[in-house]
Amino acid sequence: MIKVTLPDGSIKEFEKGTTPMEVARSISEGLARNVISAKYNDRIVETATPLTTDGSLTLYTWKDEEGKKAFWHSTSHVMAQAIEELYPGAKLTIGPAIETGFYYDVDFGEHKISENDFGKIEKKMLEIARGKHDFKMREVSKADALAYYKQENNPFKVELIENLEDGEITFCDHDTFTDLCRGGHIPNTGFIKAVKLMSVAGAYWRGDENKPQLTRVYGVSFPKQKELKEYLELLEEAKKRDHRKLGKELELFTFSQKVGQGLPLWLPKGAALRERLENFLKKAQQKAGYEMVVSPHIGQKELYVTSGHYAKYGEDSFQPIHTPNEGEEFLLKPMNCPHHCEIYNAKSWSYRDLPKRFAEFGTVYRYEQSGELHGLTRVRGFTQDDAHIFCTPDQLDEEFKKVIDLTLYVFDSLGFENFTAQVSLRDPENKEKYIGEDEVWEKAENAIINAAKEKGLNYVVETGEAAFYGPKLDFMVKDALGRSWQLGTIQVDYNLPERFDLTYKGSDNESHRPVMIHRAPFGSMERFVAILLEHTGGNFPLWLMPEQAIILSLSEKYEKYSQKVLTLLENHEIRALVDNRNETIGKKIREAEVQKYPYMLIVGEQEAEDGTVSVRKHGEGDLGSMSVEAFAEIINKEIKKTLKAFEV
Amino acid sequence: MIKVTLPDGSIKEFEKGTTPMEVARSISEGLARNVISAKYNDRIVETATPLTTDGSLTLYTWKDEEGKKAFWHSTSHVMAQAIEELYPGAKLTIGPAIETGFYYDVDFGEHKISENDFGKIEKKMLEIARGKHDFKMREVSKADALAYYKQENNPFKVELIENLEDGEITFCDHDTFTDLCRGGHIPNTGFIKAVKLMSVAGAYWRGDENKPQLTRVYGVSFPKQKELKEYLELLEEAKKRDHRKLGKELELFTFSQKVGQGLPLWLPKGAALRERLENFLKKAQQKAGYEMVVSPHIGQKELYVTSGHYAKYGEDSFQPIHTPNEGEEFLLKPMNCPHHCEIYNAKSWSYRDLPKRFAEFGTVYRYEQSGELHGLTRVRGFTQDDAHIFCTPDQLDEEFKKVIDLTLYVFDSLGFENFTAQVSLRDPENKEKYIGEDEVWEKAENAIINAAKEKGLNYVVETGEAAFYGPKLDFMVKDALGRSWQLGTIQVDYNLPERFDLTYKGSDNESHRPVMIHRAPFGSMERFVAILLEHTGGNFPLWLMPEQAIILSLSEKYEKYSQKVLTLLENHEIRALVDNRNETIGKKIREAEVQKYPYMLIVGEQEAEDGTVSVRKHGEGDLGSMSVEAFAEIINKEIKKTLKAFEV
Repeated sequence: MIKVTLPDGSIKEFEKGTTPMEVARSISEGLARNVISAKYNDRIVETATPLTTDGSLTLYTWKDEEGKKAFWHSTSHVMAQAIEELYPGAKLTIGPAIETGFYYDVDFGEHKISENDFGKIEKKMLEIARGKHDFKMREVSKADALAYYKQENNPFKVELIENLEDGEITFCDHDTFTDLCRGGHIPNTGFIKAVKLMSVAGAYWRGDENKPQLTRVYGVSFPKQKELKEYLELLEEAKKRDHRKLGKELELFTFSQKVGQGLPLWLPKGAALRERLENFLKKAQQKAGYEMVVSPHIGQKELYVTSGHYAKYGEDSFQPIHTPNEGEEFLLKPMNCPHHCEIYNAKSWSYRDLPKRFAEFGTVYRYEQSGELHGLTRVRGFTQDDAHIFCTPDQLDEEFKKVIDLTLYVFDSLGFENFTAQVSLRDPENKEKYIGEDEVWEKAENAIINAAKEKGLNYVVETGEAAFYGPKLDFMVKDALGRSWQLGTIQVDYNLPERFDLTYKGSDNESHRPVMIHRAPFGSMERFVAILLEHTGGNFPLWLMPEQAIILSLSEKYEKYSQKVLTLLENHEIRALVDNRNETIGKKIREAEVQKYPYMLIVGEQEAEDGTVSVRKHGEGDLGSMSVEAFAEIINKEIKKTLKAFEV
Repeated sequence: MIKVTLPDGSIKEFEKGTTPMEVARSISEGLARNVISAKYNDRIVETATPLTTDGSLTLYTWKDEEGKKAFWHSTSHVMAQAIEELYPGAKLTIGPAIETGFYYDVDFGEHKISENDFGKIEKKMLEIARGKHDFKMREVSKADALAYYKQENNPFKVELIENLEDGEITFCDHDTFTDLCRGGHIPNTGFIKAVKLMSVAGAYWRGDENKPQLTRVYGVSFPKQKELKEYLELLEEAKKRDHRKLGKELELFTFSQKVGQGLPLWLPKGAALRERLENFLKKAQQKAGYEMVVSPHIGQKELYVTSGHYAKYGEDSFQPIHTPNEGEEFLLKPMNCPHHCEIYNAKSWSYRDLPKRFAEFGTVYRYEQSGELHGLTRVRGFTQDDAHIFCTPDQLDEEFKKVIDLTLYVFDSLGFENFTAQVSLRDPENKEKYIGEDEVWEKAENAIINAAKEKGLNYVVETGEAAFYGPKLDFMVKDALGRSWQLGTIQVDYNLPERFDLTYKGSDNESHRPVMIHRAPFGSMERFVAILLEHTGGNFPLWLMPEQAIILSLSEKYEKYSQKVLTLLENHEIRALVDNRNETIGKKIREAEVQKYPYMLIVGEQEAEDGTVSVRKHGEGDLGSMSVEAFAEIINKEIKKTLKAFEV
């Protein structure tokens, strides 16, 4: 008999050799139907793998990351079989699961493969899938494994096996197909109900450009046809919402080869959007007792030696800036905190002065390899909506709650309704890995958990995930397409107060260390605007739109009236502009729709005479003609609905 | 006979050997009374120097820079004589005029000198001055000069003479005193009516710390006692208004050794002040059709090679930033214009789109030697209120006028009533020194002069002072102490449009080069805040004050009522804060006066009962008690008086 511990902590006894599938069945038939993969003592196993020792078992279904991984990895075997059958002589190399789907790198020999061939491969794959062939793992000796692939005339697999230890080599069989494989499969091919090959690309064997070039075939698969359909729709929608595409269409930002990759240039409309976001947060921060500061974008190397950033990141970062003489060394600032610590240190503080909350839209520079850069989400220079709160340990609780309030206000005002939080605590087994006393850690961890609880957050606790300098709370939002993005973070820091020798005089007249909170509800302006673009598809909340309305004149004759309408709108604090070009109204409307102006006000003979505007709403169409005042009321009502005042 | 050309271009004939003083007398007795120095053919001469060739003569009075220089240099001879008489054995070295006053470096031997000795030296100097001794230059041979100072036992003068050519050595005598001297004196010591020694400091012979240490005695002198008195008063006032002192007192900004010298950290009150200034300009700029952009603080070296900045400043600047691999090179941006050119280039433009006006509060970094740094006026990182206007040559005229309007609006709103302008044109004799065609230069220069004329500016034209890339207009303002500061600049640029290949499609459907205007009404936020501090002594215009009022509670009992008053003020958009500390009201008022809060609102029993506040105005005192509404009216009236709306 063996003892099997389940995720809920319960321990059950089974006969030695029981499989995960049998364990599942012992729990419920429903579970057994859905289980496709398992983990035993931190090792991924098949659902048919006999369990022979005591251990912890996790069962995975399609809903789990690991379940999907097994599903997609198994599908790559099916694709490999289809390819072998359709392209005799094609040599397989490796075929892993990836974030979404899988690929297989294949040496197609004399065959050339393109998207035109996807149909017949997919058809063959589905034929194999329908056979419900079990995936079966078996151990092979190194000699047998080599012999098998030498006979198959596959030098790639031979090379892989030569690098493996004898006794650790396994093959996976299904149907007539065999592959060198470490395991991690679904029970049989029958689970695969929908497949789609996505693309082909070149890839070098082992990523080395001096080695043979292979063809990488990407694919994805699902347990239901409907899920494939939804996935393809999502992809289509995501393509439309790609922030790089929208950023260009809406003229928000650009990049210049001369200025340098990863260094965004914000065009007028983007700069206005960004400023509006900044002002929105500034206003809420002011209400919450933050004070703005301004610090330079460089600092002496010494500053980052003090903070510890240089030891940690120095070599992988932008290198030091030297001066023509005087031998000084500066660094582009990767973080604002050292500067804010020095601002704190410019004065002596009493416990009565705390908390101090220093905020700055601080632009920082971090080196990323050019291959890692991506639109506004991965850049080399970005502006954090940064703030550092310096408080007494007793104030942590209250401050944490206030920061959560502010963060939730930001999400709410910007239409992110779906978010989760993660509380990262220290590993109580390895306390020596962390800086700071037991008592303050406990205080801080409790402060975070209490705050998360009290604010009704949907949160998970991850033990051992805290930074060495303190526990933290991170927010993940789901966008309109259901994709998750990491956004705001709130971190407690005991380290920098030590390193910068920050103090305040307590009520006991003694010197004490303040605690520091780092926080950024947006994360960075660049990343946040990117996510907002992908979330809204460019249809920002009305309050945020650089221009809320565009006045389209039927012809140049109505320029004067257009200008009058513009002035009236400005008096109502509505941001608008006039399109008075000599173009057809049809073309003007089409272009205004692409530019996503929320409202189009068409003015011609009739409107000029009546003192009205004909209103069209973006994506919705005609709202009829009305006075500018009536239109202003519509807009202001819509804004009030999304943008409530921040209450503290 | 010799021909003497006077500054007005007139040519007069005089007998050979006529002196500048005689020429002055031939013009008017009044002039002759005031002339104290002269320049003949670019050489400074005495008023008694015989003129022996044809040449151009300029006569200087006390009102001229060169006149003051001669006056102060002459006074240094008088001081040297006084020191020799009072401290036998003291050895003289060099004694030049400086920007204000003069100094003499002296080896006092066994004597120690301090401020306590100034009285007797001044007394002796005035005695000598009253003797009305003529300053007389004479040539001496090198041998005689060396013999003289060897006999005087003065190794310093000997060393100086050894480095001079025989035939070029002159001595200056007055009374019983003789000094090695190149010349440039007033007629006689009698002009010196007031002297004041300012300070002593150590100085190494020839500035070399391996050479003997000397004592530098600083002094200043005037032709009237009243002028000395005024000068000392000005110094006293300037000391109070030193922006470094005020910046500290008002908690506006600080510097940190760790962050680095010349890199200001803006504290909350300073950051708020700065933001208020930025918002003020943003608002006016928005009305004037500017669009904000945002660009990074670094750019590839290549960008500045294209712009020409690297060739011009590269070696004397912050050195390139290297990346860990990929071999990229970046520079801290010394100017925003290259980035704005790339923003212009992100799109193609038609003449109908122009002018485009891109504005950015762009922080730039320029290396300055540490000895050159001074508070906020000379820093290594500063934020320009920068904008670049891209327009057609035909639009220059109008654009220039608009920029002048904006600049004058800024000066007016900030209380700078006294300013002059300088128009810098190209040298028509050396057209090849400048980039751009004749026709466009003429257009631009006329545009500037017409604009300056039409706007009624008090301007001077300086031919040959244009930058190689275009003509410009600079503004100088006089502060409350009468000191001049260079502020805003407006520059036409033909160079960058070439270098960045900027184009627009003209009405002829052909590609044309736009003209670029650089402009910055403030110059930089750092410099402007410094000047504003020295101009206002910290009593900023009310609209600009970070806090317009402080509520001083008589005791902690009135905290609730204080908060109520604060909320009422916020509803009236008045910026205020509460001082609710447990301190005496006298101490609170004194501290509020130092912090220069424009209004103090005192609240206690009586006020809480009546729903009023007792108002004190900074520097003026009690205004009596009134309702918050009545107080709000006072403030808003005062703001309207200084801050009118910008009209375009």
